Amino acid sequence: MAYTIPALAKLAEQFERMPGIGRKSAQRMAFHVLSLSDSEAAEFANAITEAKRNIHCCPVCQNLTDGQLCPICQNPARDKSVICVVEDAQDVIAFERTREFDGLYHVLHGVISPLDGIGPEQLRIKELIARLADGTVNEVIMATNPTVDGEATAAYISRILKPIGVKVTRLAYGIPVGGSLEYADEVTLSRALDGRSEI
Amino acid sequence: MAYTIPALAKLAEQFERMPGIGRKSAQRMAFHVLSLSDSEAAEFANAITEAKRNIHCCPVCQNLTDGQLCPICQNPARDKSVICVVEDAQDVIAFERTREFDGLYHVLHGVISPLDGIGPEQLRIKELIARLADGTVNEVIMATNPTVDGEATAAYISRILKPIGVKVTRLAYGIPVGGSLEYADEVTLSRALDGRSEI
Repeated sequence: MAYTIPALAKLAEQFERMPGIGRKSAQRMAFHVLSLSDSEAAEFANAITEAKRNIHCCPVCQNLTDGQLCPICQNPARDKSVICVVEDAQDVIAFERTREFDGLYHVLHGVISPLDGIGPEQLRIKELIARLADGTVNEVIMATNPTVDGEATAAYISRILKPIGVKVTRLAYGIPVGGSLEYADEVTLSRALDGRSEI
Repeated sequence: MAYTIPALAKLAEQFERMPGIGRKSAQRMAFHVLSLSDSEAAEFANAITEAKRNIHCCPVCQNLTDGQLCPICQNPARDKSVICVVEDAQDVIAFERTREFDGLYHVLHGVISPLDGIGPEQLRIKELIARLADGTVNEVIMATNPTVDGEATAAYISRILKPIGVKVTRLAYGIPVGGSLEYADEVTLSRALDGRSEI
């Protein structure tokens, strides 16, 4: 007596695989698709196919792009002496939103995580080393996440890069702006103390 | 200097139109699509197109189906003397999950809502009246949502159906099972008192 509409269940299942989407949300999304007009639904299906077909990794910085090079590597106004190393393409978008950084990026596509079976050879580390060969880069900013895996990856890469003679830096730790000291964990608070500066 | 990848932005925009999905979730979902294999992405796009193409309203109960009639109307074991009137196809799924109701359904596809410009003629009310013509239906259960619009719709339809001579009932109001009296609103609580039954 189980009641399902196969085509609808199949669609809901696709949405359910998305990060952060549960069964009920997936069902609502599937019903939303049915409420679209034929052309809107076709446009949606097309957006998936097009994004998948056209987007690939920039051969220089490994960021996602639909052009030959990514718009950041192509931009002559960007400072080519600094590379900010991030885990994912999402992190590039987060940094670009600050409008504070005008150097280049390098996307690792993950972090070293022995538990998940991800070793350094699965990351785009050799592509990063290749970019340092011609000596235009003075500084590499390690901007991996402040997690155990992110820290380990930053430490690993900096150990490789230091013999090359490039300056390797790490993002500052501290209390988030707008946060409350009351809710800050001890490690963050002690790092904020360590990193204090004169006003 | 704004940095976007057009194909990715277009995809994220599609997800952002979904109910309950904000800008950040939409972006994560778009990145998820990029992480799929080619065949998985094609399957996803296909699920949208197929669902949209194959799913239509059952000519009898107006529920969604991909067959000629919906599986519930087709099922000879269902009790044809009771019709449960709901707002949306999602509500049918919710009732079917209880495994308690073995009658038929009628999906209105909305509620009367003057503020949104939805009048009774936009709902599938005449299709409901047509189903009552042959006299097999003894009872119509009004199972619209307990909102102002849902109540008004239930009242409107019951006024039309009563002269036909069919019994019209409404879902019980009361405290939800597992809920806490402390958090129940006054209207619900007084309705639960009114509807009390002997143990």
